This record gives sequence, structure tokens and C-alpha cells, in this order.
Amino acid sequence: MSTPLRRDPAPIITLTTDFGQKDGYVGAMEGVILSICPTVTLTTISHHVPPQDIRAAAFVLYQAFSYYPAHTIHCAVVDPGVGSNRRAVAIRTSHGIFVGPDNGVFSLILTAEPVNVLEAVTLTNTDYQLPRVSATFHGRDIFAPTAAHLATGVPLSQFGPRAINLVRLDFGIRTPKDECRVIHIDHFGNLILSLTRYDVVDPEQVTFTVGQRVITSLSATFADVEEGQFLAYTGSSRDHIEIAIRNGNAAQALGLKVGDLIRVNMG
Amino acid sequence: MSTPLRRDPAPIITLTTDFGQKDGYVGAMEGVILSICPTVTLTTISHHVPPQDIRAAAFVLYQAFSYYPAHTIHCAVVDPGVGSNRRAVAIRTSHGIFVGPDNGVFSLILTAEPVNVLEAVTLTNTDYQLPRVSATFHGRDIFAPTAAHLATGVPLSQFGPRAINLVRLDFGIRTPKDECRVIHIDHFGNLILSLTRYDVVDPEQVTFTVGQRVITSLSATFADVEEGQFLAYTGSSRDHIEIAIRNGNAAQALGLKVGDLIRVNMG
Amino acid sequence: MSTPLRRDPAPIITLTTDFGQKDGYVGAMEGVILSICPTVTLTTISHHVPPQDIRAAAFVLYQAFSYYPAHTIHCAVVDPGVGSNRRAVAIRTSHGIFVGPDNGVFSLILTAEPVNVLEAVTLTNTDYQLPRVSATFHGRDIFAPTAAHLATGVPLSQFGPRAINLVRLDFGIRTPKDECRVIHIDHFGNLILSLTRYDVVDPEQVTFTVGQRVITSLSATFADVEEGQFLAYTGSSRDHIEIAIRNGNAAQALGLKVGDLIRVNMG
Repeated sequence: MSTPLRRDPAPIITLTTDFGQKDGYVGAMEGVILSICPTVTLTTISHHVPPQDIRAAAFVLYQAFSYYPAHTIHCAVVDPGVGSNRRAVAIRTSHGIFVGPDNGVFSLILTAEPVNVLEAVTLTNTDYQLPRVSATFHGRDIFAPTAAHLATGVPLSQFGPRAINLVRLDFGIRTPKDECRVIHIDHFGNLILSLTRYDVVDPEQVTFTVGQRVITSLSATFADVEEGQFLAYTGSSRDHIEIAIRNGNAAQALGLKVGDLIRVNMG
Repeated sequence: MSTPLRRDPAPIITLTTDFGQKDGYVGAMEGVILSICPTVTLTTISHHVPPQDIRAAAFVLYQAFSYYPAHTIHCAVVDPGVGSNRRAVAIRTSHGIFVGPDNGVFSLILTAEPVNVLEAVTLTNTDYQLPRVSATFHGRDIFAPTAAHLATGVPLSQFGPRAINLVRLDFGIRTPKDECRVIHIDHFGNLILSLTRYDVVDPEQVTFTVGQRVITSLSATFADVEEGQFLAYTGSSRDHIEIAIRNGNAAQALGLKVGDLIRVNMG
Repeated sequence: MSTPLRRDPAPIITLTTDFGQKDGYVGAMEGVILSICPTVTLTTISHHVPPQDIRAAAFVLYQAFSYYPAHTIHCAVVDPGVGSNRRAVAIRTSHGIFVGPDNGVFSLILTAEPVNVLEAVTLTNTDYQLPRVSATFHGRDIFAPTAAHLATGVPLSQFGPRAINLVRLDFGIRTPKDECRVIHIDHFGNLILSLTRYDVVDPEQVTFTVGQRVITSLSATFADVEEGQFLAYTGSSRDHIEIAIRNGNAAQALGLKVGDLIRVNMG
């Protein structure tokens, strides 16, 4: 009798970078990955993180990663410290393996429910990197080949020694009870707030104040207000509250940017 | 004798959205799809439809869908009415299955030659949606899982009851004989007109007038005029006439936008 | 005894265009390719080459192609002469097959080390093109089907007669010893120069002068200078020297564009 074939799920690698899509830098990373692991499924989380914006990358990863299968390898390269002594790391968790610079880009993943960190290593084994590593493009020369070798099944422990004390950035999410912070502004100009729906005592009574503008209560969705009107609602990103204008751009209309504070009254 | 293996063609899902590529919203949809149907081939038609612009999405789908195999599943999410009582639908046609909001985004497909609608359903069966459906991101929570379950072979009838009277938007394509309309402006600033080459009586005699500018006769291609000169020609999008500047941006030069009228004289 | 199955590597097609990602033009090309070769792995090098900028496309291809497996098919469509008498070509080299217009887009590949041109043909055989070829979109109608048929294993010689004297653009890389040229500006505003590290006599002594600004010596990486400071360094694109501002945009700060000259003093 023959042993039944064990079919592992096909490997998936996601990419999150601030490279844009103009110069072929992402293309070079994908070429490296396909050279090492031709059977991989490659997908993009974002290549339009604002340049050098580690916090934005952390948020983008955080809102997307949990929708991928648990065996997915997420490669994130927003890396202003490339070539310095910042560590390169790979982190195996209960929901995905994460590869990138140890600069805080994984901060929100590491504290997300229900993610448990199982193993983390510093990427020191040059056998799993390109033969010539440039000083400015570790995405192509270190992180892409690491992700690809992981996808072929190389155990994490082969890549280097155990890494402890991973960098975690302060996202300023803990604010006084009567304030919250804009933690992300999306493509539509919707403002994602540090507050989640679990922080809101009474959805009918809560108010948000920006300058002269007061937004009262939580709506269910855009269609609850007229076109051009402001609303607050539980957004789709892990239950964070958002402020939007129906069919408009709230960030532009309010002149707000990431990090700005908004006054909250729980009523 | 062994039964020959029947090899269905690999499933293909295309995505068309107004999400941009900054926030990882598309990445979340792709994660959902790959979790349900790991063998799918995922491709993008556009993620840069102008926000909430259903007509633009309809045009983009219309010019691209017919180049895909007939078994392709096209998932289109330009959805300003998300969370309202607009229906979510899936439509099986003779050339592709279409999944998205019933807001007119499929208007041009439904009337395209030679597409026949074979079956349409309203997506009410929550077994084929994410366990928790947000009020603002049905692309991730309803349309992506629907497309993925269709890709695994679930019959359309399982997703909900038959849908009739699908929304069809008026694209204003029927204009008086001496006018036509700008129905799309592409990345190069080329103006795609409501007029097709079959509407043009004599390609040598036709003239187009925009303000003081008169463009005479149909050229074959850009190289028929000098750099910087205007031309009209039969474009690549289903025989619609286009107006362009060779190596320039006609929309900017003429100050035109989608919906604007252009005077036509058939000569 | 059974003959062991020969498993060719899965075919890979990369796309490089100036189409942007708004209109679904790339989607149409991918539909054509998947219709002909469903098993292909499709990846993007860039769809954001500046419109009609053949030199930029040539650079983007040049910095990325060598990271792909040697059997990769690279389809490049920046094609302002579409529909004119410029040739359509496919070029088999020791490191990749290249498909596109013969307008110089492959200039830098053809002279790159260690690429040897093995065979080149003019694409005249209409059996490997779409049944109806438009006058303005050969990317979809000629180049995509050619790349896809190559991916299925059709020999290059089937596509048309041998092509000689391929177009090679002058990139103005040969400059007087005391000048170099900006050959590319990337997404971050980093300036890639015509000079490579092999041209630099002494990395400690070299200086670059732009207007009143003098940048002295080659740094190893961004972190060698303070935030907001200028630096020159050996970049990641085939050893070309680059000028950047740490966490800033050097092209904007210096007001430079592609083709501009920078004074060099070898010290």
C-alpha cells in the first residue's frame, strides 16, 4: 500500500513596501522570490505606504494580515534604517510568519488578538540571502530571499539566532478619556481613529468634535446620512471608529492628518 | 481502463475596485479569496477607479472582460451604497460570472455583444460570506468570499434567490445625431467617445468640434500626425472613437471631462 | 521502465508598460495571456513608466530583469510609435526573452553584462496575434499573445523572420570625465547617475557639485548621514552611483530631472 501524498497548502507571500510601482523595485523582489520558490502565490498588501512611514505600514499590515491563511509569509519592507545596525528579523506567529526590518513595522501585529509569537530570529545566515547584498536594498537582497526560502520549507531556526526584545513603537493610542487620535487616513480620506467600538459607552450619546464641527452618535453605514454629510461609524478595520463624509473626503474637508487629536464626549 | 482525468481550467478571479493600493483593502480581499480557493489565479482589472464612480467602473470592466476566458469570475466593488438596501448580486453570463453590488456597475456588460445573461441571484446566503459582515466593506466580507466559493465550484443557485430587474444606468450614449459624449478619459488623457466607428458615415468627411478646435477625418493611428497634433481614430476599446494628441494629453489640453459633449459633423 | 517526467519550470511573464492601472488596459493584456497560457505566473515590473518614455522603461527593465529566472519572458510595451512602421520584435537572450516594440526599450538589456543575444525575430506571423489587431493597442493584440504563445513553448522562429540591427538608443552615458548624467529618478526622489562605482577612482576623494551644493565622498548607506542631509553612495541598481537625501526627496530639493548633468571631481 502506498502512503498517501501529503499536500501542504501552496505557499503564499504578501509584500508590503513604500517602493511605489514605478521603478521596478517590487519587480526585482518578485524575481528573486520566483527564482527561489517558483510555486509561490505572490500578492500585494501595499506598495504605496508613504515613504519611510513605519507606522503607516504597521497599520496596513495589521488591518489585512488576519484575512490570509495562517501559513502565509508576510514580507514588509519600509526600512529607512537599511544598512545601519537595525536588525533584520523573521517572526513566526500563530497567524503568519513576518519578515522585515526590526524597526517597529510589526508593532501592531505583535499586540493583535489572537496572535501569539512562537519564534523570532535575526537574519544573519548569508546562505539565505543574495550572494551580493547591497547597502540600500535589503528588500531584494535579504528579505525577499528569506521569505522565499521560508516558502520552500526551510525552518526558521536556520536563518539565524533567536531574537528577543523586538522593537515596538508607541502608537499614541492611549490618550486621555476625552480625546482620541487619527491613526490612519485611507484612500477615500476616511479617518481611522485610535478608539474602537468597545471604548464607546453609548453609540447614541457619543460625540466627536473637530474645531467647530460636531459629529453626534455612531451611524451604521454611509447610507445613513445624506451625500456630503459627516458621519462616525464602526469601520471595517478591526472595529476602529472612523469619521467620513458620505461620497466625500473627510481628511481634506477637516484638514486633519495622522497623529492629530479629536475630542470625544461619551455623553 | 481508467477514466481519463477531467481537468477543469484553473479558476480566475479579476478584481475591479476604487480602493486604490495604499491601505491594504485589496490585500484583505485577496487574503479572503486565497483562504477559500488557494488554487485561484488572481488578476487586477483596476483598483484606481475614481472613488464612488460607478460609470467609470462599468466602462473599465466593459473594455477588459471579453479578453478573459469565459469561465472567469469578475468581482467589481465600487459601492457607495454599501450597507444600504442595494442588492448584492452574482450574474452568470455566456462570457464570465460577475459579482458585485447591483448599482449599475455591470450596465455595459449586460448590453455588450455577444453577452447573454444566463442566471442572476441575490447574495443572501450567509454561509458563503465571512462570519462577521461589516457595514462598510462588503468587498472583503461578501463579494470576495462569494467569488472564491464560485471559483471552488459552488453552483450560483446556492448563493440566494433569483434576481430580476438588475440596475442599468443610462450612460447618455444616445445623443442627437450632431453630438457625442466623452464616456471615459484614460491614463494618457485620451478621450473615449460614445460614438463608434459604425456610427461614422464616412471616415474622410467626419469632423469633431471642441470650442475653436476642429479635428477632421479619422486617422488610423497616432503616427499619422505630427507630435503635439490632435487626431481622432477608432480606438482599441470596442470600436469607440477616441480623440488624442500624439504624445500628449488631450483631456488636459481641451479641458474636457467625462460626460461633456462634442459636436460631430458627418460631412 | 517508465521515462521520468520532465518538468519544465513554470513559465513566467513580466509586464512593463506606461499604461497606469486605472483603465483596465493591463487587465485586458493579462486576460489575453491567461486565455492562451493558463498556467503562467504573471508579474509586474512597472505599469507606471512615464507616458511614452522609452528611456525610463529601458532603465526599469535593466535594473530588474536579471533577478528573474533565465527562462522568464519580459513583455515591455512603451510604444509611442504603435501602428507606424516600427518593428515588433522578440529577442531570445542568455537571460530572458524580451517581447515588445523595436524602439530602443531593450537598449540597456542588449548591452548589459552578461547578456548574449541568441536570436531575434520580427513578429509578422499573425497566427500568434489576436484575430483583429487594433491600430493603437499592440500590447493587447500582438505583444501579449506573443508572450503567451512563447510561454506555451512555441519556438521563437515561428513568429517571423530574423531581425537584425535592433534599435539602440544613445543614453548619453558617455560624458566628459568631469560630468555625469541623471539617468533615472526613483519613487523616493533618489537620483541614479550614469556613473558606476567602477568609474570612481577614490570613494574618499570624489565630489559631486549641483549648483551651490557639494556632496563629498561616497557613503555606504543612508544611515551614515543625519536626517535631511545629502549623500552619494553606490546604489542597488547595477552599481550606479546615486544621490539622495536621507528620508527626503533629493530630486525635488535639487530641482533636477532625468538627463541633467552633474559635475564630478575625482579628487
